[in-house]
Amino acid sequence: MRAAAVKFGPALMAQAEALARFTADAPRITRTYLSREHKAAGEYLIGLMLEAGMQAGFDALGNIVGRYATADPAAPIVMTGSHQDSVRNAGKYDGLFGILSAIACVKDLHQRGKRLPFTLEVIGFGDEEGVRFAATLIGSKAMAGTFDPAWLIKTDADGISMAQALRDFGGDPDAVTSLDRRLSNVVAFVESHIEQGPVLLSEGLSLGVVTAIAGATRLKASVTGLAGHAGTVPMGQRQDALAAAAEMLLEVERYCEAHSAQGGLVGTVGILEARPGAANVIPQDVSFSVDVRSGDDAARHAAVAAFESTFAAIATRRRVRVETAAFYSADAAPCHPGLQAQLANAIAAQGCRVRHLPSGAGHDAMVFPPVCPTAMLFVRCGNNGISHHPDETMSAEDAETATRALLHFFEHFEPVRA
Amino acid sequence: MRAAAVKFGPALMAQAEALARFTADAPRITRTYLSREHKAAGEYLIGLMLEAGMQAGFDALGNIVGRYATADPAAPIVMTGSHQDSVRNAGKYDGLFGILSAIACVKDLHQRGKRLPFTLEVIGFGDEEGVRFAATLIGSKAMAGTFDPAWLIKTDADGISMAQALRDFGGDPDAVTSLDRRLSNVVAFVESHIEQGPVLLSEGLSLGVVTAIAGATRLKASVTGLAGHAGTVPMGQRQDALAAAAEMLLEVERYCEAHSAQGGLVGTVGILEARPGAANVIPQDVSFSVDVRSGDDAARHAAVAAFESTFAAIATRRRVRVETAAFYSADAAPCHPGLQAQLANAIAAQGCRVRHLPSGAGHDAMVFPPVCPTAMLFVRCGNNGISHHPDETMSAEDAETATRALLHFFEHFEPVRA
Repeated sequence: MRAAAVKFGPALMAQAEALARFTADAPRITRTYLSREHKAAGEYLIGLMLEAGMQAGFDALGNIVGRYATADPAAPIVMTGSHQDSVRNAGKYDGLFGILSAIACVKDLHQRGKRLPFTLEVIGFGDEEGVRFAATLIGSKAMAGTFDPAWLIKTDADGISMAQALRDFGGDPDAVTSLDRRLSNVVAFVESHIEQGPVLLSEGLSLGVVTAIAGATRLKASVTGLAGHAGTVPMGQRQDALAAAAEMLLEVERYCEAHSAQGGLVGTVGILEARPGAANVIPQDVSFSVDVRSGDDAARHAAVAAFESTFAAIATRRRVRVETAAFYSADAAPCHPGLQAQLANAIAAQGCRVRHLPSGAGHDAMVFPPVCPTAMLFVRCGNNGISHHPDETMSAEDAETATRALLHFFEHFEPVRA
Repeated sequence: MRAAAVKFGPALMAQAEALARFTADAPRITRTYLSREHKAAGEYLIGLMLEAGMQAGFDALGNIVGRYATADPAAPIVMTGSHQDSVRNAGKYDGLFGILSAIACVKDLHQRGKRLPFTLEVIGFGDEEGVRFAATLIGSKAMAGTFDPAWLIKTDADGISMAQALRDFGGDPDAVTSLDRRLSNVVAFVESHIEQGPVLLSEGLSLGVVTAIAGATRLKASVTGLAGHAGTVPMGQRQDALAAAAEMLLEVERYCEAHSAQGGLVGTVGILEARPGAANVIPQDVSFSVDVRSGDDAARHAAVAAFESTFAAIATRRRVRVETAAFYSADAAPCHPGLQAQLANAIAAQGCRVRHLPSGAGHDAMVFPPVCPTAMLFVRCGNNGISHHPDETMSAEDAETATRALLHFFEHFEPVRA
């Protein structure tokens, strides 16, 4: 970081601490969509927005919307922000940093009396994590025109529908379509967010430019062998479903390591269940999940095809059966090269080396490419990059550098061709 | 099998069917120690014993004991038999065949008016499987002098103590020590039992001579890695506890395959649990069981040492931690070479090739080597050798051949030096 007066970092850290109080289960942090905590956090954020010189309020879906408007009502709009909600037992920075750093930029512009040649909208999306209603990215999808009206009848664990929760919150389920920004003059969406991974940390960098939000495929593999007594079936006569599954999951690891350059390909077996699950019985049935992600859709599809074919070969050799089914698939959301270049300039202007990297996690930004050119700024987090956990952390210094870079981006923004 | 009139097979199969009715959960077969079903099955077996010319009844622990006595009260005793109890949802032949085939031998001797130069005791042990009181081999251990008096206060799932259950059954918890045969003139224990494995089936053989009842060690291995987001942690930066465990369990398989000639070494990972167990989270904690068995104790100890050292090396390379603890260990019970030779002769006399093999499963016979020379005859089972399962099966032809061999053994029995 270039030597400069500290402007943003300490205040941002204090605001993140203040927001941590809006939780359903203190001292843990859990803030779900349309909860009392969502309302309280939103009012706090609206207060910051007003203080920064913006018009601000909740929209019909409970999104927190601040506008730093130009004089020209026909001027283009740049959107920025991230989500206010959290997973259960969350950290303090996931989502919120993207809202707070954007408000800090506006406040600085406002204090300097500087107007931009576009209207800057700062959004605190009501829901991204999907904890309460088992639908994710609710707020950003409404703005991208991909909100599914069937979600309104989804119910939470207490049987309360999303429509009812919205009315209780002061929102308006009938006004969802009015949030669709596809026909408005939005020329860019840019989100700043903690990396939630260890790449920047391990390379000693504060900031990164996201190349794409990775596409993902989730498979369920089911291996069927033959149960047998652990003492009486000789090794050569076994049809051990767990040994077969072990070989398959090591193959996922080997393949992804070998192809990791392809859009940051990663593959994870997070769930594995072996039945009957007795110490003295050879496992008969094993099921496991495979989560495959890459910023490069072709690489992801090639990986899935390779897994299916390798799994089948392992199963044949071991005389077990395997069935593989994809139960989730989402394409990568590319970040706009022109906006990536502008973010890279903004990072370089802070004296930092520019690192491009894909985002393996999903973000609000992933729904915007059909609406407008989209970009993401990643900020280093500590503790091995842990997130969705109380140990999630970031430094005041990185908060400072990230906000300076974001401000630089806004002040030098040039519309790009979609 | 030498051409001969069919004498035993069909009757034995019918008796096994009859005994299947004595179950707590028809149409499944579950017959636990000191249950109503134990009583009913015991009375049925006592009826067969009496009909075969034996004195018969329950002993103080609920074992079913039949005596085919010589005129000389000082004559040596040969014991035979197996267990009457079953696992939950069991097959029809495990244990029972060893009792029924022995009774059939006595019945044939009795019908021919033939006395032996020793008293033959046929035992139906009340408990071998240990389903009800979480203590196994209760009946045979009482006879071997290794019954643990603390077992009497163990309770079943309904809170009934073993002592109370014994009294309700008509037994006598205070008389357990009287069952100890160590100071009586027992010169051999021989048990016939289905193999509960696929070796004889795969080699096309009806019978086998057991060389030893395998010793067993059970380990619990706990692998601790670092949880992480499945999308954001690059492959090279992971500390994936499940991938490490997969490599460890394949090493168990590889080692045991390579050393399978050493006392029939087998190794099984039957339980594996991965936490937190979410498709999008890199597993942090994995625990798994390792069951290692061999007829050769040195081979088993070498395998356990090799696993511990390989697990540690895998953990170091993958930057995870592993802890390994043995929670069960039992030495191999060797079968007496002299009795093995007599069983081999009895098998050869049926026109069968003699196959020696270790028993990977535990049996009543395993407690007798400290008391007297011990031997086991294995009988082929069908369906890939499946046992402890309704699909457990054996043929009437093999029942015939096995009983003829057992009868030959008794009629040609020579005491051996312990």
